[in-house]
Amino acid sequence: IHSETGKKDADDILEKCKRFMSEPVTDVQVLQKNKEEMRTKMEMMILQTQAEFCKALAEVDGGTFQVDRWDRKEGGGGISCVLQDSNIFEKAGVNVSVVFGHLPEEAAQQMRSRGKSLKSKDGKLPFCAMGVSSVIHPKNPHIPTIHFNYRYFEIEEADGSKLWWFGGGTDLTPTYLNKEDAVHFHKTLKEACDKHDRKLYPKFKKWCDNYFFIKHRGERRGVGGIFFDDLDSPTKEDVFDFVRSCAKAVVPCYIPIVKKHLNDSFTSEEKQWQQLRRGRYVEFNLVYDRGTKFGLATPESRIESILMSLPLTARWEYMHEPPKGTKEAEMLQVLRNPKDWAQ
Amino acid sequence: IHSETGKKDADDILEKCKRFMSEPVTDVQVLQKNKEEMRTKMEMMILQTQAEFCKALAEVDGGTFQVDRWDRKEGGGGISCVLQDSNIFEKAGVNVSVVFGHLPEEAAQQMRSRGKSLKSKDGKLPFCAMGVSSVIHPKNPHIPTIHFNYRYFEIEEADGSKLWWFGGGTDLTPTYLNKEDAVHFHKTLKEACDKHDRKLYPKFKKWCDNYFFIKHRGERRGVGGIFFDDLDSPTKEDVFDFVRSCAKAVVPCYIPIVKKHLNDSFTSEEKQWQQLRRGRYVEFNLVYDRGTKFGLATPESRIESILMSLPLTARWEYMHEPPKGTKEAEMLQVLRNPKDWAQ
Repeated sequence: IHSETGKKDADDILEKCKRFMSEPVTDVQVLQKNKEEMRTKMEMMILQTQAEFCKALAEVDGGTFQVDRWDRKEGGGGISCVLQDSNIFEKAGVNVSVVFGHLPEEAAQQMRSRGKSLKSKDGKLPFCAMGVSSVIHPKNPHIPTIHFNYRYFEIEEADGSKLWWFGGGTDLTPTYLNKEDAVHFHKTLKEACDKHDRKLYPKFKKWCDNYFFIKHRGERRGVGGIFFDDLDSPTKEDVFDFVRSCAKAVVPCYIPIVKKHLNDSFTSEEKQWQQLRRGRYVEFNLVYDRGTKFGLATPESRIESILMSLPLTARWEYMHEPPKGTKEAEMLQVLRNPKDWAQ
Repeated sequence: IHSETGKKDADDILEKCKRFMSEPVTDVQVLQKNKEEMRTKMEMMILQTQAEFCKALAEVDGGTFQVDRWDRKEGGGGISCVLQDSNIFEKAGVNVSVVFGHLPEEAAQQMRSRGKSLKSKDGKLPFCAMGVSSVIHPKNPHIPTIHFNYRYFEIEEADGSKLWWFGGGTDLTPTYLNKEDAVHFHKTLKEACDKHDRKLYPKFKKWCDNYFFIKHRGERRGVGGIFFDDLDSPTKEDVFDFVRSCAKAVVPCYIPIVKKHLNDSFTSEEKQWQQLRRGRYVEFNLVYDRGTKFGLATPESRIESILMSLPLTARWEYMHEPPKGTKEAEMLQVLRNPKDWAQ
């Protein structure tokens, strides 16, 4: 009976792989053999998230994603899916990476937001890191930009003990404030969180507002969402279930908003304001984002997959300040004073 | 006789001020009283450089610079001159700042490229920093972008001893390689340097190639020029004379190139390649430039004057690589392997 279940699970993996954007990064037979391990469960989950989101976006857009598989010298690789200058989307990137090898101590330290020190052998730590990340920049300024990222880390210390943790989040960056959209987005995230623990959403909503902060402007990047890092309790299975719920929520969070505004008309002034907000997006990602900075500083990283998050076009105007009472000023107001949307 | 000369010098300062973009940051009477001090000489020099460059640019463009005076809470202020979305220039910014007060030790340390430690009283160091800096982004992709910056620092240590140094440089960022322009630019800089010491140009040319390096791309930002920091020998007067020669060279370095290409026709493909190169310019400035990073991290700094250097518009395309044998590939080749242009 046990081997029967084993075979069924293995078939299940094979069946799921058929629906992915590309073959898994890890060899399918290895995944089948280690189907009980978190590495396998997480790789399957991020590939499924990538496939479901790409499919939903392609259906709305009518275009076809470019799919690039890439290898990393030291170990692992990734699958980058990009839709550029298409019908609805200016740039839509959905990236999966599964990498492993040995991390220098400083780099490992940088990966954690907590300052807990890691004990290595000869300054090197065996590690495995995997995640799905995505940024979608639509053409229409009434369709907001979405970003999400869900990731899993394992690090082995000198004494053989294994550390693991999850991180991630989903956040929305509108060009113009649409309260209904912000409420829908946050409520969908809250629902996904509440199934696991009602303390999670408020905590991670606040963390998100603090993280996506463009300090030199005194503005948040967008209307937030959820953000968390270093999550390792109560159990690995519990955290995974929570992360899976969050990843599952991406499509219902975003696609209804895209569909709703698909045919909204817009002026060249609205397009220009979108371009200025894109400039701020670039400022956040290049100056503050830990993931981007970590990626750019990592030797042999795939720069094109890291900078996929940047918009196709952006704009910087000297001394731009929208006049009081305008829709642009209303948006800035919320970026300067984040609100509770899920109440 | 001494007071006669004194009066003449004071009148001279008044006369010079008439030609500036705005009144000096420091009160004119204070400048007249301290006319022998380096602070005064340098402030006069940077204001003159700003005025001469703005005038030359405005004459070519036909537009009028917006002139903004700003104050800094702790001490000093600046004058920002900007020409935006004008006839020839997409964004032309020429900024002067003269600031003083007390620097936290870490900040003072960051201002030096050498690791020499500074001894402070209570962790604070009285300082004075002034400089002129400029970035000019033209609309026509056949007119290159220029950047220059000349600056002077004074810091007082706990024992009352005063440290001073100069820094600066001028560099060119073309969208397309024009060898004649690169040679003219570098030869003009070399001439300015050679008058003082023939060792300077080769040293500062190399420093420039190393500094304006977009590490994650393996590309320089442009075809270089000169760059130096922490310059404090042989004497204060000697270094000032050298820096003044460099600043004087900005107009003859750049304006002939602008005039030469003023009426060059260009295609939308050439404009698009310019936009991609502008994206790389943003990457360098936000990820690597020490001045920008220092500015963004400094409380109460004037963000608009710091980010004036960013282009009006920029573009990021996923996996863009120009085909072999194209003018775009020729440009990249030089950015990857800097050449000697002044030989």
